[in-house]
Amino acid sequence: MKAFEFSIPTQVYFGSGEVNRIPELCCTLGKKAMLLAAKDTMRTLGFLDMVEELLRKGGVDVVVSDDVAPNPRDVDITRQAGIFLKEQCDFTVGLGGGSAMDSAKAVAFLAAQGGGSITDYLAGGPHADLAGTAPAFPIMVITTTAGTGSETTPWWVVTNTTDKEKPGTGNDSTAARVAIVDPQLMLSLPKEITRSTGIDVLFHAMESFIACTATPFTDLFAKEAMKLVVDNLGKVLEDGSDIEARTALAWANTIAGIAIGEGKSSTVGIHALGHSIGGQTDAPHGMTMAAIGPAYMRKTWDADIQRYAEVTRLLGYGEPGMDAEQLARMSPDALVWTLQKFGCTITMTDLGVKKDMIEAMTDSVFKTMKNCLDCSLKELSRGDVVGLYVDSL
Amino acid sequence: MKAFEFSIPTQVYFGSGEVNRIPELCCTLGKKAMLLAAKDTMRTLGFLDMVEELLRKGGVDVVVSDDVAPNPRDVDITRQAGIFLKEQCDFTVGLGGGSAMDSAKAVAFLAAQGGGSITDYLAGGPHADLAGTAPAFPIMVITTTAGTGSETTPWWVVTNTTDKEKPGTGNDSTAARVAIVDPQLMLSLPKEITRSTGIDVLFHAMESFIACTATPFTDLFAKEAMKLVVDNLGKVLEDGSDIEARTALAWANTIAGIAIGEGKSSTVGIHALGHSIGGQTDAPHGMTMAAIGPAYMRKTWDADIQRYAEVTRLLGYGEPGMDAEQLARMSPDALVWTLQKFGCTITMTDLGVKKDMIEAMTDSVFKTMKNCLDCSLKELSRGDVVGLYVDSL
Repeated sequence: MKAFEFSIPTQVYFGSGEVNRIPELCCTLGKKAMLLAAKDTMRTLGFLDMVEELLRKGGVDVVVSDDVAPNPRDVDITRQAGIFLKEQCDFTVGLGGGSAMDSAKAVAFLAAQGGGSITDYLAGGPHADLAGTAPAFPIMVITTTAGTGSETTPWWVVTNTTDKEKPGTGNDSTAARVAIVDPQLMLSLPKEITRSTGIDVLFHAMESFIACTATPFTDLFAKEAMKLVVDNLGKVLEDGSDIEARTALAWANTIAGIAIGEGKSSTVGIHALGHSIGGQTDAPHGMTMAAIGPAYMRKTWDADIQRYAEVTRLLGYGEPGMDAEQLARMSPDALVWTLQKFGCTITMTDLGVKKDMIEAMTDSVFKTMKNCLDCSLKELSRGDVVGLYVDSL
Repeated sequence: MKAFEFSIPTQVYFGSGEVNRIPELCCTLGKKAMLLAAKDTMRTLGFLDMVEELLRKGGVDVVVSDDVAPNPRDVDITRQAGIFLKEQCDFTVGLGGGSAMDSAKAVAFLAAQGGGSITDYLAGGPHADLAGTAPAFPIMVITTTAGTGSETTPWWVVTNTTDKEKPGTGNDSTAARVAIVDPQLMLSLPKEITRSTGIDVLFHAMESFIACTATPFTDLFAKEAMKLVVDNLGKVLEDGSDIEARTALAWANTIAGIAIGEGKSSTVGIHALGHSIGGQTDAPHGMTMAAIGPAYMRKTWDADIQRYAEVTRLLGYGEPGMDAEQLARMSPDALVWTLQKFGCTITMTDLGVKKDMIEAMTDSVFKTMKNCLDCSLKELSRGDVVGLYVDSL
């Protein structure tokens, strides 16, 4: 067994009603918070006012920035970090899905560098490796979706609007100090977002398990998360108010985040290729994985027979008595079958990708998502990536 | 589902050869270390010299205290903390089994209070709740046994030599900053210590699973740890040089520690009663659990049919087609059968306990281990505890 390391630096508070612990928790992080949330939705649902009030109850001043875009953009982060510094905030609070949480991380990071442009720290920028950067200001996240896993990873994704790329980055300091995962906040999540975020969770868990960075620690979380999505996503899509299934899905998301966020663990080529679709089209993150996943599995199933066989088993596919090779070979079908079960049969064409975008998308994979690509169990060349895109049109 | 919280504050380095990372890791904790190790064994095995050299290679000055007793005693901790302060050390390093690691924690804690007597902070002392105490100095642990789980818990146990009690305590600051778990260091562990520490791991995992403090987070680790002990302890007892089985057992120990160390998770009445046997007799910790465990299971099996049934399954006992109640009812037999498989058929009498010690032991349970006792799924009165002891003679 290869040596590995782990910790879980984030203090996670999980369960219905845990949002009410904000007052006791926020006051340990500072006196003034910048609260970042998605435009309109968080206010309409009443969550923005509720969280603002809970923060104030904890004795914390609040600057609200409720203009987070669905895929956070470089220009917004740069502007928000400027406000954070001008207002002399002590920490950020991200309220919402991955976009709000990632914005909270990116703003806390950029503000700690004294402001400037976030693109300097993204792939292709002069400080892309984050070496020698100052540790981010403290971060608190309150998740309202069961997807992205951002509450338990150090990673954040910001769209480079110039290059139309969606690079992911992060370091130890951009893991949240405090994460609140309250399934009650997820009851009103619309069906389509529930679907696309739930599918993202499935991919986090599955990719962690078929990454060269997998460890006994990440495997524990990855396998449990896959089982939980398989057992619960259908129930939630049928009845969004099923709190038990919502809770199971929220837990799956939390631990799938750990499976891709701990130590040097990571997703693989599916996320690498998916991000570049997202950069070109602004398609929902989970859907980009669904479009590319089957082709990836067809290309790589023989890289580790035992692991791909286990994926088939965890997805509940295959017949008793089949051997590992048969099961591994079936893993692409198992994935397609699972996605169909969740009402998700999608191609890159459906997401708005045209054949002439593939060159640019491939460039983007190698420029911004090479780290993820390299965690695949099979080495993928430029030609392989083009082939996977073509197969997924 | 009840709400719960978790994190893993310790950075764990797991794997053969990881001990060689000491130089890069120790220098982040300070300039001068107090290295605590068991008398004779660590020097004889060459580990003491090796670790001292690795610390010096990392630029750290070392004060060696290689006089840790098998169950660390209050008088030793008080003396060692005095040396730590006099020598102006920055952090402690515990090298060995639970005794050395717990000494490192207790010394780092007591030194941070400016010295004094450790008994002030143990059950019955004026500051037993640790409220308002200063955070401990940083702690590094290097474990040479697969037992106690001390590397991943905040807990430490010190024998009160006046009262003959073995109270456990700890707070957030007494979790190690860095833990190195290198199975290579366990290859020369004698068979009897392998057995008693391995059985301790089994109890940590099983008790975590049948505690009222169990959560989906601790359950993940507890179930995996039980499976790993069941599959590997026999192999290691047969061939101590089986590195694969040693590694699996080390991993079981590490994650069983997480299962009893995270959030408010805990062991139950078995550890509560076992500690008080250890206080009276100085018997090996794991053996005290083995003596009391079966009686505890007979007393409590109907407190949660599903969980006790799962224990029977995880121990590999029972027949297909049995229902949960049948399986739960068999859990005491499953435990006895498992202990026998590992060559462990022991009673309290074998450990030197006489009937006339039971009153004092029961007093000790309620005085020093009430927290653990209260984590049992069935409430246990004073009469119940006396009954469990009598049944286990």
